[in-house]
Amino acid sequence: MAKRHQQTPIFHRVVEHGDVLYFSGVVADDVSQDMKGQTAQICQKLDKLLGEVGSSKDKLLTATLFVTDMSQKPGMNEAWTAWIPAESLPTRATLGVADLGKDVLIEVVISAHR
Amino acid sequence: MAKRHQQTPIFHRVVEHGDVLYFSGVVADDVSQDMKGQTAQICQKLDKLLGEVGSSKDKLLTATLFVTDMSQKPGMNEAWTAWIPAESLPTRATLGVADLGKDVLIEVVISAHR
Amino acid sequence: MAKRHQQTPIFHRVVEHGDVLYFSGVVADDVSQDMKGQTAQICQKLDKLLGEVGSSKDKLLTATLFVTDMSQKPGMNEAWTAWIPAESLPTRATLGVADLGKDVLIEVVISAHR
Repeated sequence: MAKRHQQTPIFHRVVEHGDVLYFSGVVADDVSQDMKGQTAQICQKLDKLLGEVGSSKDKLLTATLFVTDMSQKPGMNEAWTAWIPAESLPTRATLGVADLGKDVLIEVVISAHR
Repeated sequence: MAKRHQQTPIFHRVVEHGDVLYFSGVVADDVSQDMKGQTAQICQKLDKLLGEVGSSKDKLLTATLFVTDMSQKPGMNEAWTAWIPAESLPTRATLGVADLGKDVLIEVVISAHR
Repeated sequence: MAKRHQQTPIFHRVVEHGDVLYFSGVVADDVSQDMKGQTAQICQKLDKLLGEVGSSKDKLLTATLFVTDMSQKPGMNEAWTAWIPAESLPTRATLGVADLGKDVLIEVVISAHR
């Protein structure tokens, strides 16, 4: 059985199955900021979202980071490693894609456990 | 233990582990259609495939939609939300990529439970 | 509970939850080679990594292949199918992305079970 959380017109923000939590892609609210700023915003949104479904950043399993400007990866890494304690880092893949929507530099998809 | 379904020369269409079903990427058969048409075809193929492995569209966990023309996202959303009842919508991420093969506008990767 | 393996400054190479193993993206060490050569190197690295966490190529669940030159897909398929016995092939999706880092033609993200 799956439990779905936070419905929007096109997805649920989180779907829970067993004790695994799957998340929809998250982007920054203020996309006028650079990659580091956008990543930091996403981390804040994920903190809130994880808390709302009974998890936390210490329980991440995987993270897929889709970016549109690979040259700003150092700023992304700074924000990412400032957010998650080293011993809790999830798996990661960073992929340079063509388009994430106007001015969106990064979109993050995570999974976590309870 | 994993159970593999529907072998092709390069992948299995579905791999089952516990009560989670992982799916290979699915594209439309008729790629002369626009994004909405290609998405609708994919939904039909997924319906069939889900049924063949004992699941259904009400049991989707995640969906990752890779597209080559983000401007046609509204048509994609129309086909997507026409297919899945609102309360069953899975998580979703839509990524604009560079190339999915000739004339392919969208490729969908899902997971589901039994 | 999750068990994390092989920490680097930005991720863990493998995160284990239940009896599922999630892997970070893997690229070739020698990126002067073509897609077939880079894919073969990745397969070798995955063999080692799978062994180190108590799994093997016969236990793959999913594979996502991000590539920057779709025209070299035949070479990628050759290396891929030479590596995995047909009956053990995981699910697969191959996506043509914009940038994986300098000269990187392919990055592979897998999951497996114990």
